[in-house]
Amino acid sequence: MTQALRLGIAGLGTVGVGVVKIVRRHADLLKARTGRSIEIVAVSARDPNKDRGVNLSDYAWETDPVALAKRDDIDVYVELMGGENGPAKASVEAALASGKDVVTANKALLAIHGQELAEQAEAAGRVIRFEAAVAGGIPVIKSLTEGLAGNEITRVMGVMNGTCNYILTRMQSQRQGYNALFDECAELGYLEADPNLDVGGIDAAHKLALLASIAFGTKPNFDGIEIEGIQQISLDDIDQAEDMGFRIKLLGVAQRTARGLEQRMQPCLVPSDSPLGQLEGGTNMVVIEGDAVEQVVLRGPGAGEGPTASAVMGDVCDLARGLQILTFGRPANSLEAAAPAVTGLPAPYYLRLGLLDKPGALAKVAAILGDAGVSIDRMRQYAHAESTAPVLIVTHKTTRAALDIALDRFRETDVVAGAPVALRIEEV
Amino acid sequence: MTQALRLGIAGLGTVGVGVVKIVRRHADLLKARTGRSIEIVAVSARDPNKDRGVNLSDYAWETDPVALAKRDDIDVYVELMGGENGPAKASVEAALASGKDVVTANKALLAIHGQELAEQAEAAGRVIRFEAAVAGGIPVIKSLTEGLAGNEITRVMGVMNGTCNYILTRMQSQRQGYNALFDECAELGYLEADPNLDVGGIDAAHKLALLASIAFGTKPNFDGIEIEGIQQISLDDIDQAEDMGFRIKLLGVAQRTARGLEQRMQPCLVPSDSPLGQLEGGTNMVVIEGDAVEQVVLRGPGAGEGPTASAVMGDVCDLARGLQILTFGRPANSLEAAAPAVTGLPAPYYLRLGLLDKPGALAKVAAILGDAGVSIDRMRQYAHAESTAPVLIVTHKTTRAALDIALDRFRETDVVAGAPVALRIEEV
Repeated sequence: MTQALRLGIAGLGTVGVGVVKIVRRHADLLKARTGRSIEIVAVSARDPNKDRGVNLSDYAWETDPVALAKRDDIDVYVELMGGENGPAKASVEAALASGKDVVTANKALLAIHGQELAEQAEAAGRVIRFEAAVAGGIPVIKSLTEGLAGNEITRVMGVMNGTCNYILTRMQSQRQGYNALFDECAELGYLEADPNLDVGGIDAAHKLALLASIAFGTKPNFDGIEIEGIQQISLDDIDQAEDMGFRIKLLGVAQRTARGLEQRMQPCLVPSDSPLGQLEGGTNMVVIEGDAVEQVVLRGPGAGEGPTASAVMGDVCDLARGLQILTFGRPANSLEAAAPAVTGLPAPYYLRLGLLDKPGALAKVAAILGDAGVSIDRMRQYAHAESTAPVLIVTHKTTRAALDIALDRFRETDVVAGAPVALRIEEV
Repeated sequence: MTQALRLGIAGLGTVGVGVVKIVRRHADLLKARTGRSIEIVAVSARDPNKDRGVNLSDYAWETDPVALAKRDDIDVYVELMGGENGPAKASVEAALASGKDVVTANKALLAIHGQELAEQAEAAGRVIRFEAAVAGGIPVIKSLTEGLAGNEITRVMGVMNGTCNYILTRMQSQRQGYNALFDECAELGYLEADPNLDVGGIDAAHKLALLASIAFGTKPNFDGIEIEGIQQISLDDIDQAEDMGFRIKLLGVAQRTARGLEQRMQPCLVPSDSPLGQLEGGTNMVVIEGDAVEQVVLRGPGAGEGPTASAVMGDVCDLARGLQILTFGRPANSLEAAAPAVTGLPAPYYLRLGLLDKPGALAKVAAILGDAGVSIDRMRQYAHAESTAPVLIVTHKTTRAALDIALDRFRETDVVAGAPVALRIEEV
């Protein structure tokens, strides 16, 4: 009989407890599927006395995750503490150096230090697996790295922060403003300790950096991502986008362009009747496009005890079965340092601006757009009680640079009130 | 440098040509990802002189696929001929016996003979991979077997025949009847040589048998599937289901019940606003539910040169990377012979019947349902010009057995015209 696969788990929050539960509940099932017993040998967390609702008395306890990672009696180090530096990084390095494979849910760690850690893993002949780091329970890392390995990937995009999507869909369905929903999320515990990680788009951008690396064979480059959060989205934008047939999503998009690797995480408009447009609440969705497969859409829970633990266990089962995949799907030293595309590919844009009630106002706006080379697809001016008329414009495809010239010139006129809102329309 | 992975491809139809194109186009990419060159050594098809739009002159030609499968100079036998017996089966057996791994898109072969072939493969220390056999380009076999291996799967379901979904969505959007659309599909080449494989639900049922085997650790049991095609679906059903908030899909469902393994492939109603309800045209969708992951939804092209070749190449890349997965995700001799559940779990049903214009007619129908223990959730009687009133009933959850008693009694009354339509409503 093959020897058991022995796990050391650092971090006993929601996900860690979820993993412990699966290992205990499904001992027979996991053995039937992988051909090996999967056992937890030791665990590590801050407070050994806290009641976590699960029996941990069979496992050795380490207060120091680095000590856990180095233990001779584990085969796989499961890092579920989080954080891009500190104990997470130190313990992963210690695990690799002492010959352990690593399974982690830590998107920040890999988005920032993925390249060096992948190199360390390969030098040690070990692997780092991180299905749980991206889009919770959806097996997206596996689909992209393995299932779609025959494709040149042309674009990968997704809604990968459930809290942002919850806020945006509640704004639409419940007519609540951003600030009220932000407060509600804080009360419900839906927000990270630093809420900017969620609503500022950073958490989702970490995930995008990992997907882009696998998709395009490039070094993970978090700093190369253009990031914009959802804080500026108003109920007016939600309504008027809907009126034009669109919904607003915090959408991550990565694609190769002639001028480099484009990586954006920003509020975008997508067609209301597309799978992305129809995605509601905390659910995640990743869209993968390849030259052979055309388009595959994966949807599932982006967070939570069960779904995230499911992803961790998928990686653990791979290791139990002896399946060894390189961290980003190819040797780390072959990953390319792709230059970030300074501006993305041309796209249609949604513009919302307040037009002052003056003769010729609309003509001025139209002329500025025309002069900048931005062509108008659709325009609506809404009835208004105040002296400012809400005007919505959907442009034909244009570069962001051309649009920025027009936005600058709007500021110089005397007919546009306040700052116009400009959101990219992603063709899906 | 690791030696090249050498392929022998039998069957040069759409999918085979697609595989040849990917191997030629992406030689460098495939090597970068898998660490090995992937080469085609020999091919086999009926007509060596046909122009297939791709250069085959570099490859040895075998007229007999069994001879191809036995060649000493191939590592992987790629079977893309189809058919549940004949050359497909003989050549796969020959490949395994002579120490080759097998990649196939052949759902019928594995649904019928999967158990014995998996046993042969394991006895020979080889594997059979078949991502392309189920739902075209969607990496669903991989997601279910590997990514979700930490879950007890509770239900797997899907729309897995693009032609049927094309017909059903065109009936709704274009107001065309089934027969006209069937003829259109025949002209467009969307139908198998035996169209009953498509519209009769058999092709999709082959796929369901494979998913159920992996999901539940059971021997593939095609004969245990309750199969019903879409031939009886009328425009009235489409309209009236929509009016009640549902769409009709040819839906495969597999789940474990206390009384055995339930496997159904039949037209079902699903909520119009669910991902399954919103699925249009030839696209496929598979929904996987597990105790940890909750629900994952995978969507993509179910057929075509590129998508199906993408799935074949996913398997080939796995083999090039040295990833060996057992055919149905666990040892073939450990698969259980699950008894088919004679009737499925209770569900709500949609009933459409023609009620004759007689006093007390509706009361009689309601009484029959009540006597059979079938409780009514919603009922609509539509305005009518003829002497028969269309009546729609949505029941609360009931067993099919109870419903069948009521349907029998309807036939004995003098108030119901013709045979009522009864369709299951699947809760998604």
